[in-house]
Amino acid sequence: MLKDITARIQGLDEAAMAAAKARQDMLTKPAGSLGRLEDLSIQLAGISGKEIPEIKDKVIITMAGDHGVVEEGVSAYPQEVTPQMVLNFLYGGAAINVLARHVGARITFVDMGVAADMQPHPALVVKKVAHGTANMTKGPAMTREQAEQAILAGIEVVEAEIEKGLDIVGTGDMGIGNTTPSAAIAAALTGIEPTKLAGRGTGVDDEGLKRKIDAIERALEINKPDPKDGLDVLAKVGGFEIAGLAGVILGAAANRKPVMVDGFISTAAAMIAVAIAPAVRPYLISAHRSQEYGHAQMVEWLGLKPLVDLDFRLGEGTGAALGISFAEAACKILAEMATFAEAGVSDKE
Amino acid sequence: MLKDITARIQGLDEAAMAAAKARQDMLTKPAGSLGRLEDLSIQLAGISGKEIPEIKDKVIITMAGDHGVVEEGVSAYPQEVTPQMVLNFLYGGAAINVLARHVGARITFVDMGVAADMQPHPALVVKKVAHGTANMTKGPAMTREQAEQAILAGIEVVEAEIEKGLDIVGTGDMGIGNTTPSAAIAAALTGIEPTKLAGRGTGVDDEGLKRKIDAIERALEINKPDPKDGLDVLAKVGGFEIAGLAGVILGAAANRKPVMVDGFISTAAAMIAVAIAPAVRPYLISAHRSQEYGHAQMVEWLGLKPLVDLDFRLGEGTGAALGISFAEAACKILAEMATFAEAGVSDKE
Repeated sequence: MLKDITARIQGLDEAAMAAAKARQDMLTKPAGSLGRLEDLSIQLAGISGKEIPEIKDKVIITMAGDHGVVEEGVSAYPQEVTPQMVLNFLYGGAAINVLARHVGARITFVDMGVAADMQPHPALVVKKVAHGTANMTKGPAMTREQAEQAILAGIEVVEAEIEKGLDIVGTGDMGIGNTTPSAAIAAALTGIEPTKLAGRGTGVDDEGLKRKIDAIERALEINKPDPKDGLDVLAKVGGFEIAGLAGVILGAAANRKPVMVDGFISTAAAMIAVAIAPAVRPYLISAHRSQEYGHAQMVEWLGLKPLVDLDFRLGEGTGAALGISFAEAACKILAEMATFAEAGVSDKE
Repeated sequence: MLKDITARIQGLDEAAMAAAKARQDMLTKPAGSLGRLEDLSIQLAGISGKEIPEIKDKVIITMAGDHGVVEEGVSAYPQEVTPQMVLNFLYGGAAINVLARHVGARITFVDMGVAADMQPHPALVVKKVAHGTANMTKGPAMTREQAEQAILAGIEVVEAEIEKGLDIVGTGDMGIGNTTPSAAIAAALTGIEPTKLAGRGTGVDDEGLKRKIDAIERALEINKPDPKDGLDVLAKVGGFEIAGLAGVILGAAANRKPVMVDGFISTAAAMIAVAIAPAVRPYLISAHRSQEYGHAQMVEWLGLKPLVDLDFRLGEGTGAALGISFAEAACKILAEMATFAEAGVSDKE
């Protein structure tokens, strides 16, 4: 069933991109003077297949999961913070709530594998694969079947939102310890050493960083993830929320919807998605360069260039929220600006 | 009267800044993880004197003027484009209209010195000092009296908006040829050679760029602007819209309102404002790094760091519009996020 989805991912619509580019050059501004917004509008045209794409229904999907590797002392916060922050999301008090409201996006929160039982809540989608992953320093974080189950759950979640009208999806994450599997995924897929990828996450000290790098090295050593097999990398050193986000990305691309990729964890999920289905790449937009060490190399591996660098290192989809606003602005430029002819403005001499 | 205004500019409120910083550290996210947005919220607290500043009424002031130096062949577009684009602004078809609507900002358009007579329009404020500046390669662009008149007009415009409730002002410009005086201002104030500051503006070719640099060199040679006297630099190698924007900036700072500085031309205006009244500096926020060559050095001279780099080189206030949205988001983070205590989330171990 995962193969059915990946087989549906098509290339961008070149004719729509050419038409959007031609339109950009007729609008009342020097050609190219809106830089990244112009490029973005053309990419969105290619994704949607429309000369003038529309972004109205903006959705952020924020997925939560726990990580057995926190036993190794890799995070500055205790594991109980994962469900506590999910509650904070549901009550509207987290950064992602504020920024999503600010840009007019709705948010879907998903429990992919929180290590606690969450009380039912109308705004919480429960796709829990297990109560947290296993400790990847001692064996695979999850089984291959669990990895596929989590990806398919992510596809289901995004397809349900597409049913409701989703025009763009932003990815978000919550999971104490999840920069550790994300760095492990990056190391496995790029071949770069963990010391050059792992950062301080929510703020570990020097000793914590050493433990984190050590844990990643041991996880890679014991599991030997196969870089040619995205599902294998995901199962062995990934996480349930990362798997779910990879599913969101694959499902969006299969349905020709653009994906605004948030920071470190979301980028690891995007790498898994691309490892599984390289055709997904043109559907990705990197929202921002994360302050988390190693992110730049992950984005480079994906062949993306982050829209902005605001020194964020929070996750949750906070950078994606701002990125979604840029994407909407890019579409409005195409839709709402006057052409030189319409406005009676003289073009370049 | 200009002296009265500059004397009113006070330092930021340190107590409000400390309170905002303390609050940021209590909100449910790792301290500092919202990077530039956190810094911005603290600056805005210092400007407003409030621990939790509010940005509701967002105003972009876009000023237009023409430049005698276009006789020297420094622009890719004919001078008639200035009034044509002002009409495009008034009819809502320009990039700044689209982006201001996108971020919920209103715009005030001001004719500071367009070389044509504009038909009266309810959305156009007329403060025309003259029908364009004189050709600065042959003498001063304007008299010292005209420079002061234009600055005072800018102060009047922003104070009228403050009366209406302005919480933040973004600067914008329109004026065919105005990257030339802007680069000349930068050269005069920084001492950097024009070849290292002048760029292609709206898109001049190699020959046009040579003519532009040559015009700036001749203007500096014949006028000998005094870098210690901002008004002198402005009068000799400036422009009416640049002068008006310097006034907007001075007037905003005197009334403790933050200024979102757009790109190349607005940054030149900010340099004039700082040269006249150094106390204005902490009220400035650089919205974006312009693609226009030389902008980075101007921003550095001001001691600012642009929020984003989206490869814009359009002006009009387009970058400022996006920056204003960040400033609003920064305030909302302080106002709307839950603290660790409120949300019952465990803090760092």
